[in-house]
Amino acid sequence: MPQFLTTSEPSFETAFTALLGLKREDAPDVDDAVAAIIADVRARGDAAVIELTAKFDRLDLTSATLAFTAAEIEAECAKVSPEDRAALELAADRIRAYHARQLPEDACWQDEHGATLGWRWTPVSAAGLYVPGGLASYPSSVLMNAVPARVAGVERLVICCPTPGGVVNPLVLLAARIAGVDTIYRIGGAQAIAALAYGTETIAPVDKITGPGNAYVAAAKRRVFGRVGIDMIAGPSEILVIADADNDPDWIALDLLSQAEHDESAQSILITDDATFGRAVAAAVDKRLETLERRAIAGASWLNNGAIIITQDLEEAARLSNRIAPEHLELCVADPDALATRITHAGAIFLGSWTPEAIGDYVGGPNHVLPTARSARFSSGLSVMDFVKRTTLAKMTPGALAAIGPAAERLAISESLQAHGLSVRARLDRLNGGAE
Amino acid sequence: MPQFLTTSEPSFETAFTALLGLKREDAPDVDDAVAAIIADVRARGDAAVIELTAKFDRLDLTSATLAFTAAEIEAECAKVSPEDRAALELAADRIRAYHARQLPEDACWQDEHGATLGWRWTPVSAAGLYVPGGLASYPSSVLMNAVPARVAGVERLVICCPTPGGVVNPLVLLAARIAGVDTIYRIGGAQAIAALAYGTETIAPVDKITGPGNAYVAAAKRRVFGRVGIDMIAGPSEILVIADADNDPDWIALDLLSQAEHDESAQSILITDDATFGRAVAAAVDKRLETLERRAIAGASWLNNGAIIITQDLEEAARLSNRIAPEHLELCVADPDALATRITHAGAIFLGSWTPEAIGDYVGGPNHVLPTARSARFSSGLSVMDFVKRTTLAKMTPGALAAIGPAAERLAISESLQAHGLSVRARLDRLNGGAE
Repeated sequence: MPQFLTTSEPSFETAFTALLGLKREDAPDVDDAVAAIIADVRARGDAAVIELTAKFDRLDLTSATLAFTAAEIEAECAKVSPEDRAALELAADRIRAYHARQLPEDACWQDEHGATLGWRWTPVSAAGLYVPGGLASYPSSVLMNAVPARVAGVERLVICCPTPGGVVNPLVLLAARIAGVDTIYRIGGAQAIAALAYGTETIAPVDKITGPGNAYVAAAKRRVFGRVGIDMIAGPSEILVIADADNDPDWIALDLLSQAEHDESAQSILITDDATFGRAVAAAVDKRLETLERRAIAGASWLNNGAIIITQDLEEAARLSNRIAPEHLELCVADPDALATRITHAGAIFLGSWTPEAIGDYVGGPNHVLPTARSARFSSGLSVMDFVKRTTLAKMTPGALAAIGPAAERLAISESLQAHGLSVRARLDRLNGGAE
Repeated sequence: MPQFLTTSEPSFETAFTALLGLKREDAPDVDDAVAAIIADVRARGDAAVIELTAKFDRLDLTSATLAFTAAEIEAECAKVSPEDRAALELAADRIRAYHARQLPEDACWQDEHGATLGWRWTPVSAAGLYVPGGLASYPSSVLMNAVPARVAGVERLVICCPTPGGVVNPLVLLAARIAGVDTIYRIGGAQAIAALAYGTETIAPVDKITGPGNAYVAAAKRRVFGRVGIDMIAGPSEILVIADADNDPDWIALDLLSQAEHDESAQSILITDDATFGRAVAAAVDKRLETLERRAIAGASWLNNGAIIITQDLEEAARLSNRIAPEHLELCVADPDALATRITHAGAIFLGSWTPEAIGDYVGGPNHVLPTARSARFSSGLSVMDFVKRTTLAKMTPGALAAIGPAAERLAISESLQAHGLSVRARLDRLNGGAE
């Protein structure tokens, strides 16, 4: 049984603060190793990538075999069952439809002086998606990263996915094909991130890198940030369920376990206004853990990082939720829409008991790449916006410059930036006939 | 005279690539020092901030004097001339009007199965703006950071601005008051960033930190990223002017110098389709440099980092511009709107010869915090979007879950995430009457 906290107890605030600050992950310090790998790929390109892949993935490649061929992809995709294929296509369609609504609009207007102002959005030219190999090789993540990039209009979209020992996940290749990925490289780790950021003889550099990865991948993304754009550095996954007593404890238990089974460092928290219900959920979790395939992982996560919190009412639950700023928030209450209006920080909200979080992982439509570790206080999940950028536009007329130019000149002088002021003054003088 | 390149020459590609890769800044490695400062502030709070301020800013503070009082702010603001005040207010009004249009819209719709989907935007609760002290203490930057935060609806907005030796810039305080900043702390450096990120006894932590700073501030922002959100790590400023021969060389020279005067590592590039005009601009720059107050800085920047590039036509100029992905781009050509449609990567575009870039620094309306060092390939200038975040929403009905749940279950099983699948299956079974 994990922590069982009650807000009315005097010790609550201390225990809750400790829960907020709980360090769930001990990231190994791989920064020096990663720096060396990046330097090696920059210096030696393909040769370095090939050597590192042989070393870490026990896979012998050449420049010609870094990428899957169309025939290889076709052969792997053919292994996927029609049912799995249909499920992937349904997911892709729904993710595409949701993200298509995120395309931001250009703007252009004239102000009262006749100046034209506005902005324009353009897609990133090339994006690289990292897809982990092995156990954490999730086709759903391919869709969640690649579909928004395609919707944004990214021209060149590539994937790096290691295939340790040559083992390929056909569903990953099929997901990439469904999402419209151009090229799939069978490389991974910091060497893949370096190749994407700096390019090699075979791999053209990209402008933006997204996708999850292990400590090496995360450290490499941090290092190449600035050279290219990156998405967030994701931490372990987490869920917060706010549930009233009018729920099936087993449903809620499964929702909590669906995060816990990801990873021992995942976190599942239940907040309820009914202590009896809270205990019933704890019992249901224990019962499900008896037979769950990943019970070792899920059990450790639940025991070490999980919590059940009993509040006076749902209003208090919402306040605690805002302090947690959860990645995933389920509102299993009678009026979830009303409670949602009290939520100020959350990556994704799942409204009502008929919306298990797993729907959002696969087929809901919203993205499943979401801000972890309380970063929903200041950041958002992955979206089309991550693959576009805005150029602001301004166009003065002589009249507009005459109206607002003097203020710019004055501020420039106040900041001791004379040339700034003169660049305005020279034009104003022309208007006044002074410099002709 | 800086580099003078002509695209028709065989050596051009090599020279242009070198220009793109030019390393203009030698950032000192202050990372260890910054790590120690952050650890100290986390451990000792106010006491550490006060000691570090005494050491670096030669200023003795107490917890009670970390922030300016209302009376102090009032007294400083009273020193500002009515003309400067009016210019700041005009700038603030225009920046506010521009950024108000950036407020993103919530969305909510029903799909064909009756599921409700959408998203909601909420402001960051608390933001901290860093404002450098001394020479680079720009009131315009206060407006450019604080106004978008206020427009976004940020509840608590604070500034950290060091006052070395106690010297205060009244315009900075006035800009902060005009922008609606709540509290101004007279602290700076890595200790200010640490205080904003982790909080002290006196300074409540914030969720997002923006604003420029020296190497210590930049390193500290990198380190606290994740704990809080940050804006970009800005590099030295740069301008690209594309101009045809139908321009006053002196205007273009002043526009180039208005970037060059910022900093020796700033970069100013002219691209023109007329070599004679290019030489005329070079001569005009030299002439203006003779009398410019900051001629030492501007001259060094122009000589070391500047360039004049002669192209066959404006179409080629646009292509080169897209490879540069400039922070500021002036299009001083007959039809700037047409040429702008060829531009795919730029932080801000200034259309036509009547729009000197300096207008955008102060009173145009768009933000002057823009992506440097070619990062306009993948990122945007500061905006209201930096102070809001999106929560995605999904609400299934039993019917919607019946329609799409089986696909989620299948994908969960394919990813060996059994509890994910079961959380859907338990509900589907209820619908089928199986589990009642």
